[in-house]
Amino acid sequence: MAFDPADHPHRRINPLNGSEVLVSPHRMKRPWLGQTDEACEARGATHDPTCYLCPGNVRVTGERNPDYAGVHVFPNDFAALLPDTPESDGRDPLFATEPASGTARVICFSPDHGASLPLLSVAQIRTVVDVWASQAEELGRSHAWVQLFENKGAMMGCSNPHPHGQVWATSWLPDEPAKEDERQRAWATEHGRPMLVEVAEREADGPRVVVQTDRWLAIVPFWASWPFETLLLPRFPVARIEELMPADRDDLARVLKELTTRYDNLFRCSFPYSMGWHGAPYDGRDTSGWQLHAHFYPPLLRSATVRKFMVGFELLAEAQRDLTPEQAAARLRDVSATHYLDGTN
Amino acid sequence: MAFDPADHPHRRINPLNGSEVLVSPHRMKRPWLGQTDEACEARGATHDPTCYLCPGNVRVTGERNPDYAGVHVFPNDFAALLPDTPESDGRDPLFATEPASGTARVICFSPDHGASLPLLSVAQIRTVVDVWASQAEELGRSHAWVQLFENKGAMMGCSNPHPHGQVWATSWLPDEPAKEDERQRAWATEHGRPMLVEVAEREADGPRVVVQTDRWLAIVPFWASWPFETLLLPRFPVARIEELMPADRDDLARVLKELTTRYDNLFRCSFPYSMGWHGAPYDGRDTSGWQLHAHFYPPLLRSATVRKFMVGFELLAEAQRDLTPEQAAARLRDVSATHYLDGTN
Ligand SMILES: O=P(O)(O)O[C@H]1O[C@H](CO)[C@@H](O)[C@H](O)[C@H]1O
Ligand SMILES: O=P(O)(O)O[C@H]1O[C@H](CO)[C@@H](O)[C@H](O)[C@H]1O
Repeated sequence: MAFDPADHPHRRINPLNGSEVLVSPHRMKRPWLGQTDEACEARGATHDPTCYLCPGNVRVTGERNPDYAGVHVFPNDFAALLPDTPESDGRDPLFATEPASGTARVICFSPDHGASLPLLSVAQIRTVVDVWASQAEELGRSHAWVQLFENKGAMMGCSNPHPHGQVWATSWLPDEPAKEDERQRAWATEHGRPMLVEVAEREADGPRVVVQTDRWLAIVPFWASWPFETLLLPRFPVARIEELMPADRDDLARVLKELTTRYDNLFRCSFPYSMGWHGAPYDGRDTSGWQLHAHFYPPLLRSATVRKFMVGFELLAEAQRDLTPEQAAARLRDVSATHYLDGTN
Repeated sequence: MAFDPADHPHRRINPLNGSEVLVSPHRMKRPWLGQTDEACEARGATHDPTCYLCPGNVRVTGERNPDYAGVHVFPNDFAALLPDTPESDGRDPLFATEPASGTARVICFSPDHGASLPLLSVAQIRTVVDVWASQAEELGRSHAWVQLFENKGAMMGCSNPHPHGQVWATSWLPDEPAKEDERQRAWATEHGRPMLVEVAEREADGPRVVVQTDRWLAIVPFWASWPFETLLLPRFPVARIEELMPADRDDLARVLKELTTRYDNLFRCSFPYSMGWHGAPYDGRDTSGWQLHAHFYPPLLRSATVRKFMVGFELLAEAQRDLTPEQAAARLRDVSATHYLDGTN
């Protein structure tokens, strides 16, 4: 019997962080008696008087939001990180602590409470890209790591549907980027150029492509652990988001609109996910080996209401998926690049 | 300003798998506009004619379940692992695959559809412990790793409320136990005895204890990432569950009943979690350094309906918690050791 990755269980290795995923493609037809989440709905109202992110509303601190028109950044009122914290000193190897300080901000993508990235125009998304870049540049001056991210949808713990992301900048290099850092540096030393530049080259025009332009590539990575996980890569070497040229940013805005539109069209819902950017750390070391990229981790598996749970075996042993990455990419390519709400809003 | 772990953000290092967690205790009072899951309910019916795990019912394969009275083990009808799979051969460093074969079984804890571990008697839980031990022993003869686990509750992706766990035995050592393997071996080489034997010794009678007997200890580990995560440890050296003596098993059954009862009492609901056992791998290497233990990963944070989401920053950067492990342990110690449904069922 010959090995067929669309039929036979196998493991795939993630060269970026060293983890592995068990792929069980034969298991696509399990019955489902478990939790089904509420179906996502059509577009919401443009203003919600109770929303603490809408223009003009009062936040929990008593401050009033300005009547902002574009992208709006303000400090997170319940920041997990504080700029000044007394240094802990826990050197006991079983009960070790390390100091942690930082900055946390909220980034409203639009004043429109009912919008989301795919429902914004390319020009509006372009302004989000610019704000991401300027936040990274500013916070990178005084922090070792800048994590730009968006949690979208109640299923992803997003505590407010108003379109927004966050930026958490930390005094240290966190776990996940530390793994990517180590592996990207080792790869570059061994192969003479960044790992992800080679990934982009080899994936172009291939079976895992979801969106491809001259400058950008969105793929379901070979080692994806979430069913419809994607990796968004520049097709040219660039270490950090603030280094993108205007034309790169224009094209990125188009690709973000298309990728998130395809996501929404897959199950005709506002597709939940966590996404975020990884670029070279700001810890003073040279940045060669690092290639800027964004990860999209969406939880949905079979419909707008049936998700993949990373539980039991996944928490205790290792990630597991049913659908292959190639099947997931084909499904995302097969849907329209025009949003299902287009013309109706 | 002196460092106070109950007040100031800091990081804690997990010596067992090398990960870190950001602790933000000042952030306990965030507002919540996001998803609230359905409240857990009181005890369900003892038999459900549509349940494929209840005695006498027909499964999706057409097979009929026996009229079992105690614990019942049968093959997983939708196994993520198969015993015979053709060997993949992917040595390309960017697109590497590895062979994966194994066995997956379901373990019904009781014929009673409406039961759960804390609602079973100590004697019934003792028979579950025996089945876990015999499954590990049997499957360990032909697999490198045996993962015993339970996903409990719809929130944890459990596709059927009938009280049951699973066992997935694999031809390879998965990611998470591979990390624990490396670190436990390194610790034993350096310190002359198992890391977790020392953890149990130093934690006894301390602020992170939830349940303590002469033989067992359930603690919220110093480095817990889930709000009410616990680590269940024997207070004597033992590498695998099948090596437990009868008196160890009796006591373990009592401790499991008390721990899961305290969980249920915390928010007066059937407390969801993923739990599972980690013992020495069966790959032929010596087992010194390894200490048997169980991890409980429960998602709830503030009530029966408000959970912690491991999303955004957690997926892209590193785990984060608000409540400190010491606060979590105190809350679990403060509730009754008698189940809130006791006497009412
Ligand atoms: O096997 P079940 O209960 O159908 O499925 C559940 O547990 C599995 C093992 O942890 C996970 O892979 C699935 O995502 C989860 O829904
Ligand atoms: O900051 P929010 O949206 O209130 O909270 C959400 O994102 C955070 C950062 O990923 C997580 O720590 C929280 O668990 C999640 O609910």
